[in-house]
Amino acid sequence: MDHQALLEQIARDVEPLLGTGTPAEYIPALAAVDPGRFGMAIAGLDGTVHGVGDWKRAFSTQSVTKVFALALALSLGGDSLWEHVGREPSGNPFNSLVQLEYENGVPRNPFINAGALVVTDRLQTLTGDASSELLEFLRQESGNPELSFDPEVAESESAHGDRNAALAHFMASYGHIANPVPALLDHYFWQCSIEMNCADLARAALFLARHGLRADGSRLLTRSEAKQINAVMLTCGTYDAAGEFAYRVGLPGKSGVGGGIVAVVPGRCTLGVWSPGLDRQGNSVAGVAALDRFTTLTGLSVF
Amino acid sequence: MDHQALLEQIARDVEPLLGTGTPAEYIPALAAVDPGRFGMAIAGLDGTVHGVGDWKRAFSTQSVTKVFALALALSLGGDSLWEHVGREPSGNPFNSLVQLEYENGVPRNPFINAGALVVTDRLQTLTGDASSELLEFLRQESGNPELSFDPEVAESESAHGDRNAALAHFMASYGHIANPVPALLDHYFWQCSIEMNCADLARAALFLARHGLRADGSRLLTRSEAKQINAVMLTCGTYDAAGEFAYRVGLPGKSGVGGGIVAVVPGRCTLGVWSPGLDRQGNSVAGVAALDRFTTLTGLSVF
Amino acid sequence: MDHQALLEQIARDVEPLLGTGTPAEYIPALAAVDPGRFGMAIAGLDGTVHGVGDWKRAFSTQSVTKVFALALALSLGGDSLWEHVGREPSGNPFNSLVQLEYENGVPRNPFINAGALVVTDRLQTLTGDASSELLEFLRQESGNPELSFDPEVAESESAHGDRNAALAHFMASYGHIANPVPALLDHYFWQCSIEMNCADLARAALFLARHGLRADGSRLLTRSEAKQINAVMLTCGTYDAAGEFAYRVGLPGKSGVGGGIVAVVPGRCTLGVWSPGLDRQGNSVAGVAALDRFTTLTGLSVF
Amino acid sequence: MDHQALLEQIARDVEPLLGTGTPAEYIPALAAVDPGRFGMAIAGLDGTVHGVGDWKRAFSTQSVTKVFALALALSLGGDSLWEHVGREPSGNPFNSLVQLEYENGVPRNPFINAGALVVTDRLQTLTGDASSELLEFLRQESGNPELSFDPEVAESESAHGDRNAALAHFMASYGHIANPVPALLDHYFWQCSIEMNCADLARAALFLARHGLRADGSRLLTRSEAKQINAVMLTCGTYDAAGEFAYRVGLPGKSGVGGGIVAVVPGRCTLGVWSPGLDRQGNSVAGVAALDRFTTLTGLSVF
Repeated sequence: MDHQALLEQIARDVEPLLGTGTPAEYIPALAAVDPGRFGMAIAGLDGTVHGVGDWKRAFSTQSVTKVFALALALSLGGDSLWEHVGREPSGNPFNSLVQLEYENGVPRNPFINAGALVVTDRLQTLTGDASSELLEFLRQESGNPELSFDPEVAESESAHGDRNAALAHFMASYGHIANPVPALLDHYFWQCSIEMNCADLARAALFLARHGLRADGSRLLTRSEAKQINAVMLTCGTYDAAGEFAYRVGLPGKSGVGGGIVAVVPGRCTLGVWSPGLDRQGNSVAGVAALDRFTTLTGLSVF
Repeated sequence: MDHQALLEQIARDVEPLLGTGTPAEYIPALAAVDPGRFGMAIAGLDGTVHGVGDWKRAFSTQSVTKVFALALALSLGGDSLWEHVGREPSGNPFNSLVQLEYENGVPRNPFINAGALVVTDRLQTLTGDASSELLEFLRQESGNPELSFDPEVAESESAHGDRNAALAHFMASYGHIANPVPALLDHYFWQCSIEMNCADLARAALFLARHGLRADGSRLLTRSEAKQINAVMLTCGTYDAAGEFAYRVGLPGKSGVGGGIVAVVPGRCTLGVWSPGLDRQGNSVAGVAALDRFTTLTGLSVF
Repeated sequence: MDHQALLEQIARDVEPLLGTGTPAEYIPALAAVDPGRFGMAIAGLDGTVHGVGDWKRAFSTQSVTKVFALALALSLGGDSLWEHVGREPSGNPFNSLVQLEYENGVPRNPFINAGALVVTDRLQTLTGDASSELLEFLRQESGNPELSFDPEVAESESAHGDRNAALAHFMASYGHIANPVPALLDHYFWQCSIEMNCADLARAALFLARHGLRADGSRLLTRSEAKQINAVMLTCGTYDAAGEFAYRVGLPGKSGVGGGIVAVVPGRCTLGVWSPGLDRQGNSVAGVAALDRFTTLTGLSVF
Repeated sequence: MDHQALLEQIARDVEPLLGTGTPAEYIPALAAVDPGRFGMAIAGLDGTVHGVGDWKRAFSTQSVTKVFALALALSLGGDSLWEHVGREPSGNPFNSLVQLEYENGVPRNPFINAGALVVTDRLQTLTGDASSELLEFLRQESGNPELSFDPEVAESESAHGDRNAALAHFMASYGHIANPVPALLDHYFWQCSIEMNCADLARAALFLARHGLRADGSRLLTRSEAKQINAVMLTCGTYDAAGEFAYRVGLPGKSGVGGGIVAVVPGRCTLGVWSPGLDRQGNSVAGVAALDRFTTLTGLSVF
């Protein structure tokens, strides 16, 4: 089946789910999104993209950016990152403080909020301007120079940012944060506010399907590092439902509370999908279902 | 590289690690094993096996049997199993009671001890003799009719079984155990005591590489169920180090405190590896290293 | 105000509460009790008792017996008991396993179920027949030779005893239990099944108001030990509501899910109260209210 | 025995302990204190004070101020405080976040740091200048107009304040903090920095021994409220060792990491004691021992 026909089939299959689930409600900008939206895009290794539905409509990427921040921090700073953040699934909600205390302030993995704060802190130390560097990287990989922050979202995140402030101060109390907490939080909230569409997302992740090679052919990560990031996505990429996502979809993926998910078929292609209705774990209901259909129809699960 | 040459290369590479780590010490029969042992076997889809080192020497499979019990329970009883056990990584040691209490007695996944007790309980209800059925299944799939329990190990496990008794009674207090606890524990300890060698192990797991087909060509699991078990192995198969195993090895795998690990390359082959020295999470030091070398040398990681 | 008039005043004051709360429902024998019952007795240092309402009606003492078992174990075996059980409030429900795991199998105090199992285990080691020794002690102190176990309750507790079995096996896995778990549980369930009335209860506790002296004038505990038991009652005696009980009542007290509470005014008197309707923490609604009224009307709080 | 002779006896008894324990080390100003210091004072209901050792030497009161802040907040704002903070012992270290998460951001009691932040937040709302109001109150009750903040300590606390910032932001994320977090933290750190000596401390607490009456004879708290604060001190006043303190000393008490402890004998007297060497729970080694000697020598325990 060609990609376009495949996407149209998937869109039909998930249509009954549109409007189910609940958009994120903790900030007004996310709560206002139409829950019936759905878009999906596939990017081939050469960057060719096919899409369906709202695949060209930008949305708030939120936690999906965590995987790009991780890749950039590893590329620029290397393995020493892993001294400050683990790579085990957490078994707790993404913004929980409980495990953090039992493990002396070292977050379990880079995709729970505490771990992502550590990654952004590292990126800030390495670049001096973490959120701008990340935006520039995403522009280059997606080929879309228009990508930008959404200031309203960033400010809204900041206004509702007490939980993340608690996480950052808590890790700082263990000496795991190098930058001042308020500045770190600013970069983190700006990072979360980046807007992309499904095509941007799929293209930007192609380096993970190309075993580390960027859009311009240069090497971002070693083959081994690319494999490792895919592994962390599979085991930790979808909040406290990573097991379920692996079970149903069987692909490395990273989700965000804006309703976006990026997934990787190593050596083959990448997928960007978006639908704002979330399940209880914070993953897009129609997005997960669409990826489930994708691996069922194509057999392209990693398992 | 052919399988035999590959295995010999791996054996040379891991030789410096032999004797490192610590064999399980909670029962005498395991503590007495020579920590310098190492064996590895690869089984092709057609059942052909190559091996190196102590690959024909039987060892105590312990928790490796949990993946076979899960497959059998799903095959015989279907999806309703998942009403009593989750499929999320746990973020806690394999024999912890903490998470179990917060989640009302429903174990996070079938590979922590609590979850494996639920699977054995289900298998007991379905067959009336869980441990014998499992042994018979392993004999058939491995093609080795000599496979047997080790009564000394089973009795020793029982004598040191207070933690597992606590788990079983605790779940029973929530109504999640259908059989009497003492009988359930007996079957569980017998299951853990099954002895196999690397070749047996690799062959017995081939149904997971063959998308559900047994050694005799009949179907044990649907393609989708086989994928699902591989996914659960990848996210939960190596105790509280599943993230690390996925990161380094990148294959579905299930380990045991006897030092054995079984791993699956979907659609390609299976691997059985054994070395008794364990790391702090309870996984074989040389075994994990050998699988790491395997995916590095062959590129056969799922990522 | 004399004791009789005082009790009648209290009985009138708490009347509107009778029938509120919920009797314990986990075993049929407790669930069947009329929730509208209420009795209260005061015992002076010389053993004189006054009572009101159902003060001569026997009820299931349940956890109230834990304080007598503790006194007997300390009297017979001395301070070494504290090597196996702490004396800090727990901050968790009385039958929780969570804290027990974080603290390596040492219960926080002798009044949560895990700690009471340690006390009974110790008493069993010291006497060879823990539950009978306790019954005999209660008969002597209460002056009521008719006190007895309720076999129906003991069997019912045993049939619903999985949570306590889990606690006992869990502590045994850490080496904190000296006797076989099934025998220990039997003694524990028999201990819980002892029936007493409010007068029995008040009289039996007088040694705590008499700074350690028994009914026959002999010394059970040193003055210091009696003080210590009162302190443990005040900080840990009423499940996860000890702070609230201290705040409202301000007396050392020990409650049970049968609806009984015993309280001590050091150097003055003791109180036994019973009403089966329980609040969410498992303490008698009318019983706590009656003790609250007692300290308010008399000023006899320890604070 | 008269008070002066009693204090001299106690000072001799605890002399071997001086220099044991470890002064608080998280801020330089506390770490620099001579660990061999010891002072103790007793205040009679009429305000007469006797003292021994360094009883006139000022020290950093730290958490001892929490009991005065609580009394002031209750006096000014009444019972509605208890909607935002509990009164149960915690079973966790004083600065833990774990329990706070399980209980949805409501601290267990007003004496763990989280609970004290809630009290200061309330006091700030009620007065507009929480720390100054508290200082003024302490000056009046102690009769010492020289009492003051130590700016070096306050700044040092602030510089090492990430854990408290985490607690405050975390509670703010649940809506339990009314004032801006940075301002709240400032008042909290100033409050902790108040310097007093043993005589000041004993005198300032007399309203708790006088059932609510202030130094000038006016009523600060109802008799019932004074009883309640004493109860909360006894069950929660000495960090995660309240059970031990009740067991050994048997008096309501509140300790601080500066090495000070205030204790109350309701209806009789108050005690202020100071020695900087702390045990593992953060309580003064010689201070607890001195109070233990006091109740042993006088029999003035509440039990």
